[in-house]
Amino acid sequence: QNDLLSATGTTIFTVMSALAVQHGAINLGQGFPDYDGPDDVIEAAAAALKDGRNQYPPLTGVPELRAAVSAHNRRFYGIEADPNAEVIVTSGATEAITACLMAVLNPGDECVLIEPLYDTYLPVVRMLGAIPRLVRLSPPKWELPRAELAAAFGPKTKAILFNTPMNPTGKVFTAAELAFIAELIARHDCYAICDEVYEHLTFDGWKHIPLMTLPGMRERCMRIGSAGKTFSLTGWKVGYITCDRTLASNVAKAHQNLTFTTPPNLQRGVAVGLMKDDAYFDGLSTSLQARRDRLAEGLAALGFGVLPTKGSYFITTDFRPLGFNGDDVAFCRLLTEEAKVTAIPVTAFYASADAPNHYARFAFCKGEAVIDAALERMRIWM
Amino acid sequence: QNDLLSATGTTIFTVMSALAVQHGAINLGQGFPDYDGPDDVIEAAAAALKDGRNQYPPLTGVPELRAAVSAHNRRFYGIEADPNAEVIVTSGATEAITACLMAVLNPGDECVLIEPLYDTYLPVVRMLGAIPRLVRLSPPKWELPRAELAAAFGPKTKAILFNTPMNPTGKVFTAAELAFIAELIARHDCYAICDEVYEHLTFDGWKHIPLMTLPGMRERCMRIGSAGKTFSLTGWKVGYITCDRTLASNVAKAHQNLTFTTPPNLQRGVAVGLMKDDAYFDGLSTSLQARRDRLAEGLAALGFGVLPTKGSYFITTDFRPLGFNGDDVAFCRLLTEEAKVTAIPVTAFYASADAPNHYARFAFCKGEAVIDAALERMRIWM
Ligand SMILES: CSCCC(=O)C(=O)O
Ligand SMILES: CSCCC(=O)C(=O)O
Repeated sequence: QNDLLSATGTTIFTVMSALAVQHGAINLGQGFPDYDGPDDVIEAAAAALKDGRNQYPPLTGVPELRAAVSAHNRRFYGIEADPNAEVIVTSGATEAITACLMAVLNPGDECVLIEPLYDTYLPVVRMLGAIPRLVRLSPPKWELPRAELAAAFGPKTKAILFNTPMNPTGKVFTAAELAFIAELIARHDCYAICDEVYEHLTFDGWKHIPLMTLPGMRERCMRIGSAGKTFSLTGWKVGYITCDRTLASNVAKAHQNLTFTTPPNLQRGVAVGLMKDDAYFDGLSTSLQARRDRLAEGLAALGFGVLPTKGSYFITTDFRPLGFNGDDVAFCRLLTEEAKVTAIPVTAFYASADAPNHYARFAFCKGEAVIDAALERMRIWM
Repeated sequence: QNDLLSATGTTIFTVMSALAVQHGAINLGQGFPDYDGPDDVIEAAAAALKDGRNQYPPLTGVPELRAAVSAHNRRFYGIEADPNAEVIVTSGATEAITACLMAVLNPGDECVLIEPLYDTYLPVVRMLGAIPRLVRLSPPKWELPRAELAAAFGPKTKAILFNTPMNPTGKVFTAAELAFIAELIARHDCYAICDEVYEHLTFDGWKHIPLMTLPGMRERCMRIGSAGKTFSLTGWKVGYITCDRTLASNVAKAHQNLTFTTPPNLQRGVAVGLMKDDAYFDGLSTSLQARRDRLAEGLAALGFGVLPTKGSYFITTDFRPLGFNGDDVAFCRLLTEEAKVTAIPVTAFYASADAPNHYARFAFCKGEAVIDAALERMRIWM
């Protein structure tokens, strides 16, 4: 069997969600809302099952959704992308990331990754025979170490893959940071895979900036969005890639070998979603910000060190102020088993054992009663 | 960019479907029905959108579908498989094939493939750094060349991947052929990836035999089924893998890196489908057999050499008796442009240029009026 996979454990999200079920814990681990997405989007997807378009849609996506992705790019970011040649719909952002890596990396190429990172990045880079070059953000402020990042780029660099707004840190990359990254990309003549699934989930007036909008970056970036995150429908597994036509051809061929295409009814539902008015997108971030505040205040009151979150579904907490002496895996297990609340150990987002191991990640994309109940359980436990 | 993908053309299915649209041709190319799947399955999927289960389902699939896949294996083939540890739902059979290859192959391993073959097999084997060992069936009877197959296995063989019932040949592997393959697998201590998406589409009393049911094969086979084909809903992209628990762990981890999971509402619809009574499955094959006969008789009357089809959606024809002197690509282009009927050139299912190039593949999973109209167009053209 494949050695790389055999050496990997089951994903932390599945492990912790299973543990949550086993112990009857409130699951603030895996990042999925416990409320449903917009009715009109769901209704559109249901109606679309019944008008005879249940066979293979075009490989790159149904025309309605490609047009909607293109219009969404223009409306929010001023990005112009040809819906017929520069947009590819995928079966979720996970597939999109994998397809983009496949499109550009050759064995022996280097790919820059920023830790903490999502748990599919590294195995896919390695599976392709490429060499990961990891650069760590510095907690608790998750600053970009510029000298180290510059040193990670070299003659073999083919791509950088990173996530903004960022899971698990809640960091939103600033214009200055993006400009620094863009300069490295241009200098080393390479590509960027931009995992921007939390693009609409930003708070306190922070705005997501796609790297693609920076000078010189239009042709070098593969920008990835997610209906799951943008419409609170994580099970639908509809993602979309925007990239230059010169990249789109290989991305589409990779997609062909991965899933070939994505269910047309869900695509058509998502197309309705992307055309929703600004009130929807504003409301999404306002409502999540209120959930974030509720959880953050509650955790702080319990004594956690709460790191600021500018975007995403997640709050990172330092549990050392509680007096807990073990590592993050031990903490999250104990919290699940005893307090009956589940969080994710942040070391799961690092490749090696020397990672910071005193952080637990909580998801706040949950109903207010659920957030309150989780806080109350932890209070009683303490 | 990635050299292997850059060197590959867009898939023939997309190319020919686009050409069909451009020329207003009747599309007997890409294999998808022009009729819809069963109402109760579609209704179940639509209803499942509305009861609040739109977030990530479990990585290996919703419990209802895993149970239904397990029951289906038992009912049709006497295969016992634990729904909690030996069934993995994927976003279509294409993803299933890719995930199974990833689960077992290491760079440098050899993988035996049987030509003609589906167009994702070879690029994925190569992407993984493994070495394809191709063995060709001999047309027009598509016999298995046993000595050559035996010679393709060796100390580096990790797996064989093949398709029965087979696209594009319509071959259904016999018990004797499968026993020969099983013996090679056991002798060389390797795995089989069994693309059995057309399992219920067999004719004239031919029955599909899963390799997994042969002695010694239960632990070595990854058996792949497809809701798209079994329920005439090719756009839904729901596939399922049955394999031993010792393989399932790596298969699930590969799936995690490809799509993570598959839309829960479509999974729940498919679960309803797999529990349908025997009349459904019998009716599926009876109705397709009638479509096959209609098209085969019509093509023969036009002068095509019609090769027999025991299973799948496809008829392979020899167009030389028509007096056409060019190759299959030229024939299929001309047929699309002039007769306004689209077929697939069979060389698209071969890796190298020395393939037989006098065959065109027609799909018969179409309404009777469409089949008749295509035949009439070809008659007028001639
Ligand atoms: C695809 S499961 C993980 C969901 C997620 O993005 C997270 O919890 O980090
Ligand atoms: C996934 S597109 C191809 C459909 C098919 O199986 C075929 O036409 O051979």
